[in-house]
Amino acid sequence: MTDTDSRKEIDLIDRYWRAANYLSVGQIYLLDNPLLKEPLRPDHIKPRLLGHWGTTPGLNFIYAHLNRAIRARDLDMIYICGPGHGGPGMVANTYLEGTYSEVYPDVSCDEQGMRKLFRQFSFPGGIPSHAAPETPGSIHEGGELGYALAHAYGAAFDNPDLIVACVIGDGEAETGALAASWHSNKFLNPVHDGAVLPILHLNGYKIANPTVLGRIEGGELRSLLEGYGYKPFFVEGHEPQDMHRKMAATLDAALGRIAEIQHAARRSGKVTQRPRWPVIVLRSPKGWTGPKEVDGKKVEGFWRAHQVPITDPRDNPGHLKLLEDWMRSYRPEELFDERGALRGELRSLPPAGARRMGANPHANGGLLKCELRLPDFHDFAVTVPQPGGVVAEATRVMGSFLREVVRLNADARNFRIMGPDETASNRLDAVFDVTERVWMEKIEPYDVLLAKDGRVMEVLSEHLCQGWLEGYLLTGRHGLFSCYEAFIHIVDSMFNQHAKWLKVSRRLPWRRSIASLNYLLTSHVWRQDHNGFSHQDPGFVDLVANKKADIVRIYLPPDANTLLWVTDHCLRTYDRINVIVAGKQPAPQWLAVEDAAAHCKAGVGVWEWAGTEKGDAEPDVVMACAGDVPTLETLAAVDFLRQAVPDLAIRVVNVMDLMTLRPKERHPHGLADAEFDRLFTKDRPVIFAYHGYPYLIHRLTYKRTNHDNIHVRGFNEEGTTTTPFDMAVLNELDRFHLAMEAIDRVPGLSAKASAARQELADKLAQHTRYVREYGEDMPEIRNWHWPYRTAPHAGR
Amino acid sequence: MTDTDSRKEIDLIDRYWRAANYLSVGQIYLLDNPLLKEPLRPDHIKPRLLGHWGTTPGLNFIYAHLNRAIRARDLDMIYICGPGHGGPGMVANTYLEGTYSEVYPDVSCDEQGMRKLFRQFSFPGGIPSHAAPETPGSIHEGGELGYALAHAYGAAFDNPDLIVACVIGDGEAETGALAASWHSNKFLNPVHDGAVLPILHLNGYKIANPTVLGRIEGGELRSLLEGYGYKPFFVEGHEPQDMHRKMAATLDAALGRIAEIQHAARRSGKVTQRPRWPVIVLRSPKGWTGPKEVDGKKVEGFWRAHQVPITDPRDNPGHLKLLEDWMRSYRPEELFDERGALRGELRSLPPAGARRMGANPHANGGLLKCELRLPDFHDFAVTVPQPGGVVAEATRVMGSFLREVVRLNADARNFRIMGPDETASNRLDAVFDVTERVWMEKIEPYDVLLAKDGRVMEVLSEHLCQGWLEGYLLTGRHGLFSCYEAFIHIVDSMFNQHAKWLKVSRRLPWRRSIASLNYLLTSHVWRQDHNGFSHQDPGFVDLVANKKADIVRIYLPPDANTLLWVTDHCLRTYDRINVIVAGKQPAPQWLAVEDAAAHCKAGVGVWEWAGTEKGDAEPDVVMACAGDVPTLETLAAVDFLRQAVPDLAIRVVNVMDLMTLRPKERHPHGLADAEFDRLFTKDRPVIFAYHGYPYLIHRLTYKRTNHDNIHVRGFNEEGTTTTPFDMAVLNELDRFHLAMEAIDRVPGLSAKASAARQELADKLAQHTRYVREYGEDMPEIRNWHWPYRTAPHAGR
Repeated sequence: MTDTDSRKEIDLIDRYWRAANYLSVGQIYLLDNPLLKEPLRPDHIKPRLLGHWGTTPGLNFIYAHLNRAIRARDLDMIYICGPGHGGPGMVANTYLEGTYSEVYPDVSCDEQGMRKLFRQFSFPGGIPSHAAPETPGSIHEGGELGYALAHAYGAAFDNPDLIVACVIGDGEAETGALAASWHSNKFLNPVHDGAVLPILHLNGYKIANPTVLGRIEGGELRSLLEGYGYKPFFVEGHEPQDMHRKMAATLDAALGRIAEIQHAARRSGKVTQRPRWPVIVLRSPKGWTGPKEVDGKKVEGFWRAHQVPITDPRDNPGHLKLLEDWMRSYRPEELFDERGALRGELRSLPPAGARRMGANPHANGGLLKCELRLPDFHDFAVTVPQPGGVVAEATRVMGSFLREVVRLNADARNFRIMGPDETASNRLDAVFDVTERVWMEKIEPYDVLLAKDGRVMEVLSEHLCQGWLEGYLLTGRHGLFSCYEAFIHIVDSMFNQHAKWLKVSRRLPWRRSIASLNYLLTSHVWRQDHNGFSHQDPGFVDLVANKKADIVRIYLPPDANTLLWVTDHCLRTYDRINVIVAGKQPAPQWLAVEDAAAHCKAGVGVWEWAGTEKGDAEPDVVMACAGDVPTLETLAAVDFLRQAVPDLAIRVVNVMDLMTLRPKERHPHGLADAEFDRLFTKDRPVIFAYHGYPYLIHRLTYKRTNHDNIHVRGFNEEGTTTTPFDMAVLNELDRFHLAMEAIDRVPGLSAKASAARQELADKLAQHTRYVREYGEDMPEIRNWHWPYRTAPHAGR
Repeated sequence: MTDTDSRKEIDLIDRYWRAANYLSVGQIYLLDNPLLKEPLRPDHIKPRLLGHWGTTPGLNFIYAHLNRAIRARDLDMIYICGPGHGGPGMVANTYLEGTYSEVYPDVSCDEQGMRKLFRQFSFPGGIPSHAAPETPGSIHEGGELGYALAHAYGAAFDNPDLIVACVIGDGEAETGALAASWHSNKFLNPVHDGAVLPILHLNGYKIANPTVLGRIEGGELRSLLEGYGYKPFFVEGHEPQDMHRKMAATLDAALGRIAEIQHAARRSGKVTQRPRWPVIVLRSPKGWTGPKEVDGKKVEGFWRAHQVPITDPRDNPGHLKLLEDWMRSYRPEELFDERGALRGELRSLPPAGARRMGANPHANGGLLKCELRLPDFHDFAVTVPQPGGVVAEATRVMGSFLREVVRLNADARNFRIMGPDETASNRLDAVFDVTERVWMEKIEPYDVLLAKDGRVMEVLSEHLCQGWLEGYLLTGRHGLFSCYEAFIHIVDSMFNQHAKWLKVSRRLPWRRSIASLNYLLTSHVWRQDHNGFSHQDPGFVDLVANKKADIVRIYLPPDANTLLWVTDHCLRTYDRINVIVAGKQPAPQWLAVEDAAAHCKAGVGVWEWAGTEKGDAEPDVVMACAGDVPTLETLAAVDFLRQAVPDLAIRVVNVMDLMTLRPKERHPHGLADAEFDRLFTKDRPVIFAYHGYPYLIHRLTYKRTNHDNIHVRGFNEEGTTTTPFDMAVLNELDRFHLAMEAIDRVPGLSAKASAARQELADKLAQHTRYVREYGEDMPEIRNWHWPYRTAPHAGR
């Protein structure tokens, strides 16, 4: 390229950038007069000014330069906008490149369309102020900061031809999740994965403060990025022409480096050493090209530029003039023609078709999604000759199913399992028969199950597991996150944001369905007796239950075959968040696979083989249970009652799908009231043993006929390092308490029942003495098994 | 010191270390035979082996060396054990130094005591396996990894003479919270604050994987730590004598550097440049000194050493022998005398009295806590001549109160305000009249409200805000965390862990009360219309309500004077977590200060001035509200009903303290049933406008007489960027929906009511048209005020 070509190109980029900046300011301010054909009047201004200017010109600057590079190198690239509240910039750019009008034809590429574009922004009935699901090309909202880089890596995994440009604001860089995400490069394989190009955009300020990375001296910043394992490139300044030249050259250098790394790795097909991928540091003024001062106070290059730099142009004529001068400084007449269309030369800057970042199918992952190939889960079922007749570890059985899922989709490379160092400890280790853990650092001879290529990703950061998986799903792939139940709270807020994203996406016809986010929560509260109180918290599902019914499912499979069914089911669903809670310890198995399938399909059912109802009469008591340990304790309680109070008519109801408890009108899985009454009766006592905090059951059932008789036992925030059964006793969820409550709640029982109740109290005391003396549970607890030889039977 | 002295000292440290290692292994394995006076038999071994060996020898190594340094330099030092599951090490060391037996006299410094020490560990009725509240000297459990360094900095702030040694495991170093915490050095003032000495303990492995920082090449690790702004010192190896020498020399160098930095800064009283504080990197084998191999598989120096390296000594004679050889390799007879007491020379290694890290009062912060000096909140009250007669911003009024709190405690230096860059945007900026934000980086001439010394700490990381505040409170100080409501979910798991810590601490008589952790959640769901859906989530309180009733309080003050009362109250409480949810926007004020105090004291009450009840008859409908916006909408609904359906007898109940709704038996603030019935009636419809997800109200009230008639409206997960009133409409919490429901729920109303209902429906439609046309709320909404001239009146 000659100097003249280069100057022309720089000039073109600059004009394109001005166009994007003009459209960004227009969105924040204007109701009308979009092309400034008239002098600006107060009634052209929105009555409420909502938006974030500060980061926007930098985002636009990057977008314009990436456009040039995509065209020059025919790149497959998406743009993750960490500072998502620079929404006006993302919208402006997708409008300029034409994708916005393709998705929203009423926002056309003319004056009328531009008026709509401006008006709808942050306006009731319009679009949000962030890079939201509504924004074409976005897979990341960036409202809650921290997850841009993890999303970027998730998108890049198994997408060898994709480059994910990821802009990280210096505010976001202070968050924990982002700080950890830099190390994602230890898990990215240059042969099979794409590339992430982080662009650390330092404008130096957040809402009202300088930022840490914006202010530390340059040597430290370089060390930090090198310490994270990157090769940093710096672009710093404020004079546009100079900055354009630097940015273009730096982007070329960084993209060149990516190409070299990939070429070298792919030529040999091997990775001997983790590459030092490039990172670009762009230092530019906050609110760049905006007003330098307002009322004598510094705005450009300072935090006052963060939101709306001129707040009252409707009421303050001087400020109205300032705004008009600012907007006219972009010379809109040079950028748009009379009809409001982008002038011809500028239209040639962005790439075409699916190369446009707003139209890249990776950013609407459902377009690229292939169905997972799933084995027949029946093949992995535990043989259960009779209820309780065999012992198995539920997650280990699930692991054998997952092994086949990994195997069947190995060529498609579209399924990954994430977990914080717990895949084996959660007993999913059968997957290691067919794959390894990804690890790009040195592998020692004595290391096991590590490889440069693998389907399992383990890092001691729930944030990374969640962020990677979200990025992976949003770009059209599938996965599972297995986590200690208590520590999934670390990503409560990320779950929240993903649920919000799904809720909005489902309403947008152009956004195609993506695979569900599947959680396996194991090493759960009742089997964390060895790690103690800090590891005991079943409250994540309470949060989940707050979200829109369309989105969330909560499953509590009581044994291995039900867990198999649920796993298979969840992997087939779309646009949901499925939470599966299941234990990993050896436990009695209740249902043969066909019965398990029938039970799971219903979601809730009577276990007739367990109860003692006769004929059509209502039972004396309903023993309900949800979760593996509550089910075990309930059945042990029923065993006791059957022997000690043989006249008692007991019904056992197992709830596998928690959402069945909600009213039919409130959740697609909710039972109709009549069906609920049929299961739980209208007036009999229900002793409900529940896996988590008892309130959730009340909150789900408070409208049911028999609610006043539902007595829930669950985790009562009592825990420590102790035995498994003692954990149940501490929270009064154990067989003895359950059986006692059944006796107490049924009126008019015989003297035999009183004797039985005393026996239960004695057993409790005996347990406590024994466990404190011997440090393990009494043999009668450890060795208890369901003693009745009944053919297994499906729920009704 | 001569070479001989040095050799003797190293030898002493090594023996001391062996003693700690011996006691650690004993805790994991032994029921009896603590001094190995007999050959080890299966019945000496615990039936369930629960504990983490891998990190423990390194923790013991550090502890022994710190002991030497404390004694040599008379240091005031505490030990934060990031790898908290190395609990056996912390317990062993506090036992060796004598503090354990002082706190728990039955665990005496003799054979009998050692037997108890071993037996109680991870044993039912005994102590947890982590460095828990039960462990003297601990302010950090480390069960959920990530918060060690933030806690350490929190402890160091305003404790100029304290050095906080903070061990960070390489597993924890992968977490987001820890990764962000390194930057805490940008907020630590060498003049007024103490020092943090991070010790990055790399043993290379987590549960089943190598670790990122353990495997990256040394140059990157050095760059990373230098990039974080530290001066790194490395201690690497495995040969004990060599390692002791290196560690002693390195500790001397690092502590010398700390002393120099502090001396230089304190001599001048000024900080010109942020110091490069030292960090020590200790690379030692995982499971150091434990079995090298078990059954031919590598254990020492590998992840197999993570928990219990020999799992079956009770059943496997070869493994029993291996265990015995391991324990005897420490030569217990050289360490303990016949009676089980530590031999004399070793007793002189640790420091004495309160210099022992297990006895340091900073680690039992209640011992050092001084009461806050609080101004009279009445002085800051808004004058409310009549309900609704004046408009104010609640948090701004609170800010003026906080300003005085800051001022009155400036000399005591024991009160800080934390927030993610939002103190001013949350309108607490009056505090900046008397203090600044702490900032150790360069301060530019145009910067505002930044200083090297200040009471406000702002960083865009909720993890740091929470972690710093926890560390600050646990060491006996006071504070407040102000946060956007939606983003407090980022620290859900930290809240959980702090609540667990408080719950256990309260049961330990020797742990003294600490100040409550106070949250101000503002910029809340109903006033995040400008930031949109990602910023709208009121679910944190749902999580809070799961915790033990002793610990948690949730306050929803409806206006400024109630917020003042609540703030004053919360700052006076101990051992709690207080959550205050309050808005920052201009809003009508309801209660004069005396009425506010009476209302807040009761926690809930009838606002007689608002209702239309007459005499002793029950009202037709109860309009209940909790939260500022629900209160506003309820009163606007009541205003409409008073005019449109004048015969309707309305009672208005405001709930300020959410816990009053719980049964008296379940929460100390819970209303007795009779009192609840008196407020909410036994059978009248209750239209309950609630700030958050409606389910919480149901879950709190499901046992109340009138529960079936309580109809709750709240946040229904509908949000976007729109107007404030439109947010209420989207969730059907607005005045029109509330008034319509009141009409619908009261049977037998007149034709006038039907007309009123139609008017409401029309208004709703009119609102939607208007807001989409003009982008702001209708004047009748914006300008609505409570039109009745009534003297303000306390709740009853």
